Amino acid sequence: MSSTFGRIFRVTTFGESHGAALGGVLEGCPSGVPLTREQLQLDLDRRRPGQSAVTTQRQEGDQVEILSGVFEGLTTGTPIGFMVRNQDAQAKDYEKIREVFRPGHADYTYFVKYGHRDHRGGGRSSGRETLCRVAAGAIAKQVLAPLGTTVHACTTRIGPIEALKRDYEIAETNVVRAPDAEAAVAMAELLVRLREEGDSVGGIVEVIARGVPSGLGDPVFDKLDAVLAMAMMSIGTIKAVEIGDGFAASRMKGSEAHDAMDASGFLSNHSGGILGGISTGQDIVMRLAIKPTSSLRVPQQSINTRGEQVTVVTEGRHDPCVCPRVVPVAEAMMALTLADAWLTQKTVRALG
Amino acid sequence: MSSTFGRIFRVTTFGESHGAALGGVLEGCPSGVPLTREQLQLDLDRRRPGQSAVTTQRQEGDQVEILSGVFEGLTTGTPIGFMVRNQDAQAKDYEKIREVFRPGHADYTYFVKYGHRDHRGGGRSSGRETLCRVAAGAIAKQVLAPLGTTVHACTTRIGPIEALKRDYEIAETNVVRAPDAEAAVAMAELLVRLREEGDSVGGIVEVIARGVPSGLGDPVFDKLDAVLAMAMMSIGTIKAVEIGDGFAASRMKGSEAHDAMDASGFLSNHSGGILGGISTGQDIVMRLAIKPTSSLRVPQQSINTRGEQVTVVTEGRHDPCVCPRVVPVAEAMMALTLADAWLTQKTVRALG
Amino acid sequence: MSSTFGRIFRVTTFGESHGAALGGVLEGCPSGVPLTREQLQLDLDRRRPGQSAVTTQRQEGDQVEILSGVFEGLTTGTPIGFMVRNQDAQAKDYEKIREVFRPGHADYTYFVKYGHRDHRGGGRSSGRETLCRVAAGAIAKQVLAPLGTTVHACTTRIGPIEALKRDYEIAETNVVRAPDAEAAVAMAELLVRLREEGDSVGGIVEVIARGVPSGLGDPVFDKLDAVLAMAMMSIGTIKAVEIGDGFAASRMKGSEAHDAMDASGFLSNHSGGILGGISTGQDIVMRLAIKPTSSLRVPQQSINTRGEQVTVVTEGRHDPCVCPRVVPVAEAMMALTLADAWLTQKTVRALG
Amino acid sequence: MSSTFGRIFRVTTFGESHGAALGGVLEGCPSGVPLTREQLQLDLDRRRPGQSAVTTQRQEGDQVEILSGVFEGLTTGTPIGFMVRNQDAQAKDYEKIREVFRPGHADYTYFVKYGHRDHRGGGRSSGRETLCRVAAGAIAKQVLAPLGTTVHACTTRIGPIEALKRDYEIAETNVVRAPDAEAAVAMAELLVRLREEGDSVGGIVEVIARGVPSGLGDPVFDKLDAVLAMAMMSIGTIKAVEIGDGFAASRMKGSEAHDAMDASGFLSNHSGGILGGISTGQDIVMRLAIKPTSSLRVPQQSINTRGEQVTVVTEGRHDPCVCPRVVPVAEAMMALTLADAWLTQKTVRALG
Repeated sequence: MSSTFGRIFRVTTFGESHGAALGGVLEGCPSGVPLTREQLQLDLDRRRPGQSAVTTQRQEGDQVEILSGVFEGLTTGTPIGFMVRNQDAQAKDYEKIREVFRPGHADYTYFVKYGHRDHRGGGRSSGRETLCRVAAGAIAKQVLAPLGTTVHACTTRIGPIEALKRDYEIAETNVVRAPDAEAAVAMAELLVRLREEGDSVGGIVEVIARGVPSGLGDPVFDKLDAVLAMAMMSIGTIKAVEIGDGFAASRMKGSEAHDAMDASGFLSNHSGGILGGISTGQDIVMRLAIKPTSSLRVPQQSINTRGEQVTVVTEGRHDPCVCPRVVPVAEAMMALTLADAWLTQKTVRALG
Repeated sequence: MSSTFGRIFRVTTFGESHGAALGGVLEGCPSGVPLTREQLQLDLDRRRPGQSAVTTQRQEGDQVEILSGVFEGLTTGTPIGFMVRNQDAQAKDYEKIREVFRPGHADYTYFVKYGHRDHRGGGRSSGRETLCRVAAGAIAKQVLAPLGTTVHACTTRIGPIEALKRDYEIAETNVVRAPDAEAAVAMAELLVRLREEGDSVGGIVEVIARGVPSGLGDPVFDKLDAVLAMAMMSIGTIKAVEIGDGFAASRMKGSEAHDAMDASGFLSNHSGGILGGISTGQDIVMRLAIKPTSSLRVPQQSINTRGEQVTVVTEGRHDPCVCPRVVPVAEAMMALTLADAWLTQKTVRALG
Repeated sequence: MSSTFGRIFRVTTFGESHGAALGGVLEGCPSGVPLTREQLQLDLDRRRPGQSAVTTQRQEGDQVEILSGVFEGLTTGTPIGFMVRNQDAQAKDYEKIREVFRPGHADYTYFVKYGHRDHRGGGRSSGRETLCRVAAGAIAKQVLAPLGTTVHACTTRIGPIEALKRDYEIAETNVVRAPDAEAAVAMAELLVRLREEGDSVGGIVEVIARGVPSGLGDPVFDKLDAVLAMAMMSIGTIKAVEIGDGFAASRMKGSEAHDAMDASGFLSNHSGGILGGISTGQDIVMRLAIKPTSSLRVPQQSINTRGEQVTVVTEGRHDPCVCPRVVPVAEAMMALTLADAWLTQKTVRALG
Repeated sequence: MSSTFGRIFRVTTFGESHGAALGGVLEGCPSGVPLTREQLQLDLDRRRPGQSAVTTQRQEGDQVEILSGVFEGLTTGTPIGFMVRNQDAQAKDYEKIREVFRPGHADYTYFVKYGHRDHRGGGRSSGRETLCRVAAGAIAKQVLAPLGTTVHACTTRIGPIEALKRDYEIAETNVVRAPDAEAAVAMAELLVRLREEGDSVGGIVEVIARGVPSGLGDPVFDKLDAVLAMAMMSIGTIKAVEIGDGFAASRMKGSEAHDAMDASGFLSNHSGGILGGISTGQDIVMRLAIKPTSSLRVPQQSINTRGEQVTVVTEGRHDPCVCPRVVPVAEAMMALTLADAWLTQKTVRALG
């Protein structure tokens, strides 16, 4: 089930970086949800490469096509097929890495696992697979809209530069998607410098869901925070996830870490909107640690498939920091998880 | 599927804190694996309450019974049913919290989700469900044993006190399960003091898998790190998970964050043993952030099911820090995940 | 997933004929459903061996225990564990078939599949596993009750003797569970004679669900009739299933095979209550072909695990025809399938 | 999961009769399997409409495109996306049935289930979805090929005309796909006559798998025959399935129904190649009862969405009997089921 996410609201994706197309099938979308191609395209455009000086210059229109499941502007309840054709598939650029294991990439592990692989641009391991997540996430957002549930992500740190404000409205107005105009400038400067050096850097993306119904999520293994952790960690560059106070909670005393209640509801949100794996109705807040992009112009030491020593230098386009492009992907994974949990919740009450 | 974990090697659990019994069914265990009741009991004894001055004094024998799937000392390939009867089920102790939402507990969210719930000791949301994980994990360890794969966890921080050494052999010899004898003494002292104060504290548990075959894990959504993140975050008290460098990676440059290779293999392990969601064959290393235990003698403010203001004081037994008891649970989740990934990997090669 | 049935309303079973116990875990049962141990026992008693001269004389109390998921008479929404201890486990009776492949039984195929098996009484392949289905089915019936959905099965043919009436009320009043008092007498006589001869015979069981909501079932692979076919065919002795007109439809012309409608609804029920895999709201009608019981006193030719020729004679107790005992099992599978389809249907409409 | 089939070797399909395209994603295909577009096209051409005087005249090229998962002629182990564009999508032909429930079709049940539906040509309920099964089945056949497992289906009865021979080689040489040249002529004549009358008829398709490894299939719910029953019954027109002796077994005595063994193996195949849900290594033999095609020129009585009485006459193209076109679909479902069971079997032995 490696390419399927969700239990009831389920997306199954396919596609390689330099194959014919990427796409997916979304099963379990309720009927009667208003949906247009443009709604998917809007989020895909936010994820698209080549948007600014601080993202990869690969030129891809990434035009999505809906192939089924929507009729006269409404979903029909049947599977929604969607697809994006690859255009900028210059396979010859990758001939030289056919037998090389690039550090930080999945080249070695795919080789060991499958024996036979499409090496071009990382094949299936390319971050390009995330466009299918974004397209499916846009559908999930439509399902959540009538509930008043919204999902937002932004870049809150790049390398050492931290966003000190949470001015979410401006996050989409700067190239790094930071919720702090001042920090955004410094972050962008850092990225331009790293791009010149051929190096890259990591960072933090924060994801928030607002207007989440209480009662979503399941006990034990499918706790809402557990599924969200999986959802986020499945994004290729993420090495850690926090919910609510996260690591900070591990330093607290119980008398300071819990959320008291009065008649108006919870008085704080240390828990990040989830207790016992079930949503409280408060904001769900997560932080994701993103590792530095793996493709560098700085020479790196590695081996090839014959075990011979090689030096790897990635020429051409790359993102010096992937945070701004993780933003729409993290939103998509949050939306997919919540839409699935909401549909699941409909089955929980005998008289529901 | 809230109470099921795994795809091929799958465990489904049941049971409440103060119901008749807890247990589970493990499907997909290969036939011919040597297995005895005692192997399960060994790990259950490590998780059992009442072991030392720093854990809850609830007295439970927690004797496991294997109900099916094992014949003449070997697994048969059919489902392995197992069960632990509850003994210390003093339901009357819980009458006073029947209608109260205890801070930090799942009382409120279960009430909202299900309407009707077994409030005694938290019912299904009790940490007591983890004994089913530990029993199943013990079976997973038996499956992994012939591969040379071993799993170990230990407490590396309690509140502010950090283990500075990684002397894994001694972790099981002290009450806090820390891999640093000196730190262990300080940790235990802190816990005794907190117990007197009726307070609690969080900490960090580190989990390591050694001897992991390369090639385990799947691309995209079921990446090995994604499944491990879910596995660990599904343990009730965990608020954050890291793999490899984790949050530290988000501060690094690419030129310092990747693992170079030479003919002998990888030269470092920033990735934590997983690249592109697939195991590299190196150690898998995770850190888990544990929040402070929720049951406190310190008064906490909350409401009841009628929305009235109440003060909550948990009398009697509780763990001042749950880290030492998370250790065998984290091991179990690692073992379950790896056993499932290993069986899945058997299906990946055409001529395998 | 071999021992799991259902998607949302899911049962996972365990247990061998002569192991410690059989049981299961039912996940996904909504909260607030009235449920008692006695409701499960009622159907288990209908399936129990030793009830009459025409069923096996194995003496089993088959007392079921609910281990979790029910509190103060109502389901809580958490997994319902249940268990039946084996009593009449005279393993020594089976020592002589340890290495013999009994014709018609699964001895050979389990040996080939697993290498290691519990041969006693057929182990996991024993019809005794169906008691877990019956227990779970009794829960499903409780879930369906408020919808007015009821499920009934009866024996409509044994060998050549056909029930000519469908007097469902009397089916439970005779030992063969036939809806025709006269035929029931002839069927019982046949079975007594076969029991004396040490032989057995096949038959037909008919299953009907009434008061089924329209709209249940899913397009394409999970059509309601497809899932029902799997549900029924998974009962060990069943070799064919029909829905609606079944094989008779294959001889019809289109102009006589379809169900016309007027304002009052459908004017006939050739389809058996399912069109395009989705329930029409009419009765769902299925017929199941049951093969003759495999355990015979009549000598049969076979081989043992070393490939040596042996003659197999099953001494002692056996059912000359398993139809009467398939009745409650078929009802259980119908109820489980419908409860699952009904819960699934709750997720299909955007504003549902 | 309504549009997903299989556990490890899993296909998920999408598409409506008159939407943009139909297609699917095949997950879990092992790496290293030789695969070309032409292999899929070959079976699609056998299913394609407009092939002869006895099938619908809808003109569709049904050219399949592989979108991912295959590189340099071999599968990579990643999801195989595939797609067929609809060409002959004359939606206007269907305007008049927008609000009409055609007898025998799924119009009414889709309307009740989803509220909103794509009525054109039956939308998702159209038999056109089976082309995705055939494409996926062609991949399954490639996976099975190295095992020596082959799958064949043929038409053994149309209405009252029975094939008396099993001359499988000639089945593909006549328009009805019957394994009896003489019967084939009579069948074709019947179909031409029915086409003139605007009527249709049912029939029987037989499916055989040869060279099946023993040991495939799982105990209890996922018995190989149970999964095959589901696989076949999920084909829209099928109302009954038999395995081995099927209904005939229900008339037999035990002493004549079981398959004896000697050192050379089984001496007969009453069981149809499956015992206890697990393959014996003999041929797997199934018979499928196909109902008459629902689209008729003969007037049929029905109602519309407003409950008003209407007379339905389907003008234009239709199949008088769908058996010849079910043949490749039934083969596909058999191949998909066996490929999945074979991959599952790889996980069953500890040292496998």
